[in-house]
Formats: sequence, structure tokens, C-alpha cells
Amino acid sequence: MKLKALNFFSERCRWARPSEIRELLKLTYHPNVISFMTGLPNQSTFPYKETEEIALEMLEECPEIVLQYGTTEGVNALREEVLKISKKDGIDADVNMVIITSGLQQSLDLISKAFLNPHDKVLVENPTYSARLEAFHAFQANIDGIPIDQGGLQVEFLEEYLKSITSKKELPKFIFVIPTFQNPTGVSMSERRRKKLIDLAHEFNFLIVEDDTYSKLRYDGEPIKPIKAYDKEGRCICIGSFSKILAPGFRLSWTIAHPDVIKKLAITKQSSDLCTSAFNQEIVLRMIRKGYLDKQIEHARKVYKNKRDILIKAMDQYFPEGVTWNRVMGSIFCWVSIPKPANTLEMLQIAMREKVAYMPGHVFYLQDGQENTLRLNFTAPDNDEIVEGIQRLARVIQKEMSKPILRNDLIVGV
Amino acid sequence: MKLKALNFFSERCRWARPSEIRELLKLTYHPNVISFMTGLPNQSTFPYKETEEIALEMLEECPEIVLQYGTTEGVNALREEVLKISKKDGIDADVNMVIITSGLQQSLDLISKAFLNPHDKVLVENPTYSARLEAFHAFQANIDGIPIDQGGLQVEFLEEYLKSITSKKELPKFIFVIPTFQNPTGVSMSERRRKKLIDLAHEFNFLIVEDDTYSKLRYDGEPIKPIKAYDKEGRCICIGSFSKILAPGFRLSWTIAHPDVIKKLAITKQSSDLCTSAFNQEIVLRMIRKGYLDKQIEHARKVYKNKRDILIKAMDQYFPEGVTWNRVMGSIFCWVSIPKPANTLEMLQIAMREKVAYMPGHVFYLQDGQENTLRLNFTAPDNDEIVEGIQRLARVIQKEMSKPILRNDLIVGV
Repeated sequence: MKLKALNFFSERCRWARPSEIRELLKLTYHPNVISFMTGLPNQSTFPYKETEEIALEMLEECPEIVLQYGTTEGVNALREEVLKISKKDGIDADVNMVIITSGLQQSLDLISKAFLNPHDKVLVENPTYSARLEAFHAFQANIDGIPIDQGGLQVEFLEEYLKSITSKKELPKFIFVIPTFQNPTGVSMSERRRKKLIDLAHEFNFLIVEDDTYSKLRYDGEPIKPIKAYDKEGRCICIGSFSKILAPGFRLSWTIAHPDVIKKLAITKQSSDLCTSAFNQEIVLRMIRKGYLDKQIEHARKVYKNKRDILIKAMDQYFPEGVTWNRVMGSIFCWVSIPKPANTLEMLQIAMREKVAYMPGHVFYLQDGQENTLRLNFTAPDNDEIVEGIQRLARVIQKEMSKPILRNDLIVGV
Repeated sequence: MKLKALNFFSERCRWARPSEIRELLKLTYHPNVISFMTGLPNQSTFPYKETEEIALEMLEECPEIVLQYGTTEGVNALREEVLKISKKDGIDADVNMVIITSGLQQSLDLISKAFLNPHDKVLVENPTYSARLEAFHAFQANIDGIPIDQGGLQVEFLEEYLKSITSKKELPKFIFVIPTFQNPTGVSMSERRRKKLIDLAHEFNFLIVEDDTYSKLRYDGEPIKPIKAYDKEGRCICIGSFSKILAPGFRLSWTIAHPDVIKKLAITKQSSDLCTSAFNQEIVLRMIRKGYLDKQIEHARKVYKNKRDILIKAMDQYFPEGVTWNRVMGSIFCWVSIPKPANTLEMLQIAMREKVAYMPGHVFYLQDGQENTLRLNFTAPDNDEIVEGIQRLARVIQKEMSKPILRNDLIVGV
């Protein structure tokens, strides 16, 4: 007799399926395909020489520390460095307000574990980076989306939404936002809206979980302070990551929050994985202290700004009329809309024949209905791949746009 | 107004407190104290030269892989190597039955997340390594203990326990066991009992979660196959770790289970932390391929066997009559009993004055009543510290044993 594993799974995980993003990535992986699909930083920017230097140095100087267990909250000196980075962004905090985690996703997992009862309400931007939502789904949250526009989260819509709630149980536990260079759309929330969001969190008594992954990768325009910088009550939990500004392979992020929250996240982390790799933390600590992180960010900015420019220029040149996109001022993605009734999921099959891949926009929406959008990553491909890839994609879009309007979804309505 | 964080925490985490073990460790940390308290491998055994060599090599050869995101299940080549290691232990598996996790605790977290509904029954050995139980507590398990003796888990007791259950809901989802060199007691489950446990799991339809941390650190006696080696149905989830046989700083463990279970653990891990550090996985992969892991295990065995011998000899020589301990055949701990009514938690205060620390045994029990036991780690202290520490501890025990019998807990009964 073989095990019927399904009979044993918990309610929270019985429903869980591999994410659509992940499955699409697998489907389109092929060496000859130019892929705008991933969320990968460019490997040519990785500081491998600096990592070599630091690895040798620390293994000579303190092998007994970097190869041993560490404390759950993270290496203290690294927490102190995180404070300095955050101070430049306008965040005033002390070391009891910082925890180091094994990547941003772990921070969301710990937050979900520490805060979410089954059926608790979580709000997110719609569209949003849906892979993040799996952390909330895994703790059986009810997720609702708040629309965004060119100024980011529509806080007036949010206010109406909150006012329309009649039962206290329906109020959100927290809202998850990516206020700067939102994934997938690239838009940023204005300062006014950030302050308004804080006010609403106060008035309706919920928390804000701020994903600040991309703010350091700004190519144009003036920086906007993170929401956490305006937070007087300790309602905002701000998460930053070394993955996009240094290298994902170290799996290191940080979370800044109210000391009571950090204390609880530390207890939660202890039950989850005891501690984050001391080895990796020491590497990143030394990267910062030696000024390599700042240099690395400068370098990545330069490389990525150039790629962004190449992408925009190629789209200008090759994309058919009617296709629109935003000239993103930072981050690693660009968001494209094709005149309706384009269907970018179906179009992916044609794209694969043309050997080009992108992420269909619908995977980022909580509901159906935005099948004409797609997300392009411009950091992973080489510069000439970007141009060639956009030419291929232009042909694919052209075909899609010249398809007869008689489509399955319309036929249903006949 | 400041945030009242408590109002936001989930039911599952509201109760959570820092573990007693962790608090005791903090309390007794002092440079002049000889500590038998931790569960640390000896830092002098860490393969730091080998790590240097490998770090350089891989950063030259494949920086784009080791610094990038990896797959959720882990580096395939490392999963293959884990299969080879397990095959030597009698476990037949294929690569779909292996997942790499960020330490053994994460594996337990994922298992709990994937399997436990609130109030599900989990069985454990009593006493057991209580820090592990936090993974189950965090998912609101009801935990029951099954006693152990010199032959490990008392399977006859378990059988009676299972037979006495009248409601299907009360049957365990799984039993968590450390069958070889159990922590804290050091005892190993006999082959007969391992087979009997599998039979009971089949008969009463539960899973077995096997923590195989210590089996490679055997100093005497013949190896016993892990429970997983006898598992025909895929009921056993076997977890191994590189922390004690290589270095904890890499945070790397592996889990072998039924392919359906591994698939679900991977989905669960994706929501928890996306993937384990590719950087650390590549280091350990190369450690194995270059034969450094085998050498490292050989080296640790030799160093630790010697420390075990020094400890036993010192206890023979200095401990007062009536104190008993087991001559552990492996692992990193020794379990000591002092004649009742000794109270090793109270005694710790005297011990701290004598500048010696140990782990009071009661922290490993699910119920009160074994206050006369303590656990000694013999791998972290230096050899001469072991002798000096046991001399100090002998004086402490002597004092405790010569205390008048009129004790608080007896007075209460007057």
C-alpha cells in the first residue's frame, strides 16, 4: 500500500498549487528564447571579486563566528548598518527595531505567521506581485485588491472601501504595498498618498506592510521617502532586501518595525528556522563597511538605466501603434498594454514560436479582466538581446492585433 | 498614540514566548563560565581552509549561479549527493524525494505548515529536544509525549496509547522522533522498535518525522539504519543536517520523503522563503564532491570521541556517588541524573557562582517531575575545560546533594 499523502495535508496547504508565475517560467525556459519574463538581476553585475576578497578575509579572521549558529535577530553589526541605510531614507529607528531575515519572502511569511488568523482580511494593490501573496494565502487570509493608477495606490478608493465596511471583523489586519516602483506596474505612490495611507491606517486601525525592494534602483526623478519615514505610531513594517541591490544568492533582507513586532517576529523566526546564515550576513556586512554595496548600487543603476533606455527606444521603434507603456523611472520592470481584446496568455504561445517570452499581465490581478497587459523585465537580458527580443515581440503583438475580433470570450456572450 | 502590537497578533503566536532554553543560554553566557549548556559543534573542527578554497573556486567558475536565485527544491546536484549519502544508510530514493532546506528547523516548520491543522495531535518522545517542538506549537498542535528508556521510544507504551484512543480525531498526524542518539538522552531506538513503529504508523495511519541529526557522529557500536530505510509505504519523513557534521553557518539540511510530500513541501517553502541560498548549497556540494565532507566527519568523530572519553573519565573521577549517566556512543550530549530530590534548575544558580553551566533536564520534559536531570554538551568546550568544568560541577552537585531534604516543594505539602 502506498501513502495517500493528500489525506494528511493541512487545510491551509491542501489548496496550494505551484504559482502560475513559476509554472510559466518553467514552460518558457529554453536557451534560444530571449526572456523578459523573470525578475532576475543581471548576473554580470554581481560583485564576485568583492565576494572572493571578503570570503577569504572573514574565513581567516573569524571562521568560528561565520561557520557557527547565529542569533535569531541577525548579526548585530549588520542590523546597525541597516539602520544607517534607513536613516538616509528618513527612517529613525534603533537596533531593537530591526531583524535580518532569509530574503523578503521570509519576512512576509513571518509577518503572516505572527499576525494572520484564518479569514483575516489582507489588502493589496491590484495588480500586485502575486508571488508575494502566497505568503498570505498560506495562512488562509482573505485578500482584497485596491486599484492603482499612475500615482500608485488609489487612497480615495481605499477610504471609500474602508468606510463601506460595517463589521469590525471585515477590517483589514494589514495592507501590503510596494509604494516605490511597484511590481508589476512600475508606478510610485505620491508623498500625499503615503501620508494619507498612514492616516487611514490610524483611523481604521490596521498595519501597513511596505515592500521597499526597488527604491535604491532609481534612474530618474527625485527619491520619495518610504512610508515608514512618515510613521509615528509604529504601524508600518518596512522590508528591504539585498537581493536586487547586491545579489539574491545570499538570501538576505531586513525588516524595520515597532520593537514589540520585531520581538514577536524573532520568536516566530526561531520556530521557523532558528537563525539566518551567519556566513552570508558577514559577507554582506563587510560589503557595506568596505563601501562595496554603495559602489554596487551605483554600478547596477548605471547598467540598468542603460538597459531601460535601450528597451524604451526599441519599443518606440518597433511596437505597433496603439501599444502603450510607462517610461519607468526605476526598478527592473516595464508594464505594457496592448489594445483590447488582446490576450497575452494566449499570445505567449505565438511568442514562444518567435523565441521571446514575457510575463502575461493577468497573473498579477486578483480578478480576471486585464488580459491585454504584460510585464517586461529589462535587467536579465543582454543589451542586444533586448533589441532583438523587442523586434520579435513586436511581430508577435502585430499578429495578435491583426487577429479577427471573433474570439472565444466573445463567442460565449453570443 | 503608540501601537498596541499585541492586539494584532494571531492566535497561533499570541502565546509564543522565547524558548526557556534560549533564555537560559542568555542568562549563563559569561566569558569565565565553562558551559556544557549549548548544542554547538566545536568551532576548531570547522573546515574553514576548505571553505576558502571552494569559495574562490566557485566564484571564479560560476558566480552567475551561486549569486543568483535558485530553485525551491534545491540545487539538483546537491540533491543527488544527498541520495548517495542516504543510500549508504539503506535508504532507496530518487531525486523527487529530496528537498534542501535552510536548516532542520525549517524542515519542521514546512512539515508543520503543510500538515498541521489547529489542535492536530503530534506525538514526541518524552523527554525530547524541546526547541524543535516550537515548530509544532506555532501551528497550534496538541503535543503528547511517549516515554523512552535505554532502548529508545517505548513502542509498547505507544501501542497501548494508540489503542486507548476512541475518537479518530485524537489519532496523531505524526510522531516526531530522534531515533539515533536522541537529544537530550543520547539513547538509540533498537531495530526491532523501529520496525514496530513503522507497523504502528501503518496500523493507525499516521506519519513518522525522523530527525537523523546525529547518526553520523558515532564513536562506538554498530550503526543502526534510519527508520526511513525500513519504510515501504512512504510514511516516514527523514531529515538530515549538515550543521553538526560540517558547519551550522551554512544553514543547510535535507529532507527525504514520498514524492507527493516533497512536492507539497516545495510549494510550502516557496511561500516561506522562495529558495535556499545557492551560494551555500554550492559550497556544501563541492565539499561533498571533493571528499571534504567525509574527511570532516572523520575528523569531528575523532575530536568528539576524545572529548566524550575525557568527559566520562572526569565524571567517573569527580562526581559524587549516586550520580548516574549514560556512556553515550555518539552525538554531542551526555545525560546525567542526580539522586532525587535534586533540582537542577535551582542548582544552576549555585553552578553560576562556581562558573559552570549545564542545561537543566526539566526543559526537555512535557510535564513537570524530572527536576533531578541535566544535559551536558561535550563538543563545545575545550578538553581541559571539560575536566575543570566537571570538577566545578561535582562541587555543585555535592552541595545540592547535601542540602537538607526540607525543600520548598515538600513544604507545600505540609
